[in-house]
Amino acid sequence: MLRLRLKSPVDTVMREPEKDRDRPSLLIKSRPIRLKGQSGINPFKELSQKGHEMVVLVPEANYHILNGSYTTRTFKVPYTMADLDASLDIIKKGTLEAPGLLDVPKTFEMIMNFTEMQVKGCEGLLYDEPLMRSLQEQDFDLMLTDPFLPCGTIIADAFSIPAVYFLRGMVCGLDLEAAQCPSPPSYVPRLFTGNTDAMTFPQRVKNLLMVGVESILCKNVYRSFDELASRYLKKDTTYKQLLSHGAIWFMRYDYMFEYPRPLMPNMVMVGGLNCAKKKPLPADLEEFVNGSGEHGFIVFTLGSMVSELPEVKAKEFFDAFRQIPQRVLWRYTGVVPKDAPKNVKLMKWLPQNDLLAHPKAKAFITHGGTHGLYEGICNGVPMVMIPLFGDQGDNVQRMVARGVAETLNIYDITSEKLLVALRKVIHDKSYKEKMMKLSAIHRDRPIEPLDLAVFWTEFVMRHKGADHLRPAAHDLNWVQYHSLDVIGFLLLILVTVMFVTFKSCMFCFRRCLRKSQKKKNE
Amino acid sequence: MLRLRLKSPVDTVMREPEKDRDRPSLLIKSRPIRLKGQSGINPFKELSQKGHEMVVLVPEANYHILNGSYTTRTFKVPYTMADLDASLDIIKKGTLEAPGLLDVPKTFEMIMNFTEMQVKGCEGLLYDEPLMRSLQEQDFDLMLTDPFLPCGTIIADAFSIPAVYFLRGMVCGLDLEAAQCPSPPSYVPRLFTGNTDAMTFPQRVKNLLMVGVESILCKNVYRSFDELASRYLKKDTTYKQLLSHGAIWFMRYDYMFEYPRPLMPNMVMVGGLNCAKKKPLPADLEEFVNGSGEHGFIVFTLGSMVSELPEVKAKEFFDAFRQIPQRVLWRYTGVVPKDAPKNVKLMKWLPQNDLLAHPKAKAFITHGGTHGLYEGICNGVPMVMIPLFGDQGDNVQRMVARGVAETLNIYDITSEKLLVALRKVIHDKSYKEKMMKLSAIHRDRPIEPLDLAVFWTEFVMRHKGADHLRPAAHDLNWVQYHSLDVIGFLLLILVTVMFVTFKSCMFCFRRCLRKSQKKKNE
Repeated sequence: MLRLRLKSPVDTVMREPEKDRDRPSLLIKSRPIRLKGQSGINPFKELSQKGHEMVVLVPEANYHILNGSYTTRTFKVPYTMADLDASLDIIKKGTLEAPGLLDVPKTFEMIMNFTEMQVKGCEGLLYDEPLMRSLQEQDFDLMLTDPFLPCGTIIADAFSIPAVYFLRGMVCGLDLEAAQCPSPPSYVPRLFTGNTDAMTFPQRVKNLLMVGVESILCKNVYRSFDELASRYLKKDTTYKQLLSHGAIWFMRYDYMFEYPRPLMPNMVMVGGLNCAKKKPLPADLEEFVNGSGEHGFIVFTLGSMVSELPEVKAKEFFDAFRQIPQRVLWRYTGVVPKDAPKNVKLMKWLPQNDLLAHPKAKAFITHGGTHGLYEGICNGVPMVMIPLFGDQGDNVQRMVARGVAETLNIYDITSEKLLVALRKVIHDKSYKEKMMKLSAIHRDRPIEPLDLAVFWTEFVMRHKGADHLRPAAHDLNWVQYHSLDVIGFLLLILVTVMFVTFKSCMFCFRRCLRKSQKKKNE
Repeated sequence: MLRLRLKSPVDTVMREPEKDRDRPSLLIKSRPIRLKGQSGINPFKELSQKGHEMVVLVPEANYHILNGSYTTRTFKVPYTMADLDASLDIIKKGTLEAPGLLDVPKTFEMIMNFTEMQVKGCEGLLYDEPLMRSLQEQDFDLMLTDPFLPCGTIIADAFSIPAVYFLRGMVCGLDLEAAQCPSPPSYVPRLFTGNTDAMTFPQRVKNLLMVGVESILCKNVYRSFDELASRYLKKDTTYKQLLSHGAIWFMRYDYMFEYPRPLMPNMVMVGGLNCAKKKPLPADLEEFVNGSGEHGFIVFTLGSMVSELPEVKAKEFFDAFRQIPQRVLWRYTGVVPKDAPKNVKLMKWLPQNDLLAHPKAKAFITHGGTHGLYEGICNGVPMVMIPLFGDQGDNVQRMVARGVAETLNIYDITSEKLLVALRKVIHDKSYKEKMMKLSAIHRDRPIEPLDLAVFWTEFVMRHKGADHLRPAAHDLNWVQYHSLDVIGFLLLILVTVMFVTFKSCMFCFRRCLRKSQKKKNE
């Protein structure tokens, strides 16, 4: 077995084993074991515990390797760790210094740079012939991959094995397009628009225009994917076409986060699968949070990527925390001022889900990645959200629209603004009440999302795919799908009938006219 | 509690307790009990076993009353049992004597007559003021109803309690429209067209035309529903608007039967929930089927409605059965010829699911109702299908398209045709193989459909609805939903810009022309 590890440098700085945070491509050899309602932290661990063999392929330059019972194999990439660090720094700097969070061209440029590097890395793997040959000989049953990057999907096609996707979403909604999932722009908000599902007329105009903008920008983003796929597979294809053969799409959200909209039969929602299991806190942390008394404590992380802040920015946070009675646990590795307040505990890494599960957790300051966001929802902790880039702006909008979070902009954040937001989510009871309701509904489900993910992964292995869930829409082109040819044909008939009727009437009318004129003349 | 029993006479002739065959409206008072993965035959029994109180309201004239732990209350209707029998006879006669199974106007006429009678029955209930008052005072938590008939939905609105639907589908796809579920006519076949999901151009033309035909015919079918709802609720509403507030839609099918197509978040597929539990056969039946030896036996029923056949038609069946080595169990109450073959056992009622579950069951002759059809799928028995009316023609098409059934027309059936079809599904191994594959996939699921139905029913009671699954599309009108206003606005801007640009160019051009002419003239 082989786990193809094509890590996105964007979300993998955290070196702790948060194994479900990555974008892995897994090749799995199945063991004929049926699911018996077990539960765990992520489907990879779960699958390996159930006896499936897995291998992860790791690029030479990468941020961390997962611990677990899978073999890893390394492949060469045309970039170094220094290159990765440099590209990360550009993103961080851009995020902290630019005012526009929903800056579409900037975001697309970031995505372009990121995917370009990853496509090069993918080439390093695909054209490593000895490695690829040895993988093919191992006769895998399944590819589990995040289609945000193309390598897993291309290999699944090359090896003729079913692919199962595990994703938050794709740029320009390519996931929905490839799955033939309808997504009416009248109530399904597009990324980067800041729209909710209830839009005013101008917002709907913006949303529809975004569909057009996306289709132009995305041609550039996915061109390199199309080119690589066609070149490597030696056939004229597009990435979307390859994607459309995916057996199951695991979507890392549910309707606590996403707005209700159509789904396709092979889309399975597994939002919150990361916060199923909670461990007790280490003794020192337990002591610290219990010492917070009735005021409770605040958990603060900006995700795996940003553990440092410019001194001047960090000062605003320290100043705000000095003025509140709550204790604060902050994942922070930057410069610490001499007068740092004593109610703040700085840590290189913190057990986020376990802390949020603590009854004294009062608020969660987060950048709004879906993992952290779901840990907030699972544990019913209101949030102050500081989105940094990518989908985070949209994620945050969704939580704010539900009345369970306040949002701040990292660019112009001040201690005053932070204090106002924190006091609001802690003291205005409506935030906690709405969050508890959201949490209750999220946790009230007929089957755990993790079990669902394991079940469907094994289902695909048992049945060599999930063809019975594939809609016939895949066999239609755009014109056929929208019945435009049929409508055109019916219009043609209608026009012909009207034309013939009109001509016949005119003919009769003229004859009658002539006759009556003749009569008059007589 | 009250169970509003608004039975459709069409599918309730069978007097045996096949409790899930009806179209009930249930008012339920919840008990705070959580589901623990139990299983059973139908959700009503399951819910009552879990301590929820239920009441069923029975029209005076009805075919059978359910046995179970719910209270029943009777209401007056302006028709008698004789009227019901007469209307049934018309349908039966029409079915056996008319050649066109997919005769759309005839089917719509039947539906019209049927719903008209039911609407009158519903009026009898709604305007029984003492009864309605006493019901309202009982403070129910939920209405469980088949929206094929309007009474349950209207009462849910009147009592301000959530409604949960349990259905196979609605005429003209009103269920999909009311749930805002996209259903592209390019690959989602319409009822009565005989189309599959892979359509040729002419078939797609027929499918799109059917959308138009439906919208005209359905105005008549649903007009009486709209009128009754508006009149009783004293507000200007339509049945579709009322339906759209349904919390959960239980669809009595899955993708073994239905073609893959979009779903909405509050649609839950529970196909095959009727064949979960199997009982051993009574001793005499066990002896009879075991006596069939290696040839096995055939199960033959034409559903709850048709247990008799005209003598001449029945003769064709007896003649065919005489020529096969299999034994036949036939639910038949008609005239028996003197020379009836000995391999045929005639019964007033037969335990269909238990028989099909027997390893010696070789084929299933059925009319193609979804209940029987799923019992065939669950137990992996190939079918010879003789559709009679309603959705049965389309149900049968789906099974034939999957290569697990042969179909015959009751109008021109002969013993030869029957023999050919029977021998095909019994001896051509592909039917059995495909059916076993279908059956395996159907039974390979993360949670039993019955448990799913019970879970979501209780979920709605716990959370007083399922608002988090309601798409914002419900707040848009047709023009807004399809973004036609936005497209119009953008086109207007485009045309204006083009017009202004053109006029400006023309102005410049003329000035230039004039200048150059002036120059020439100088």
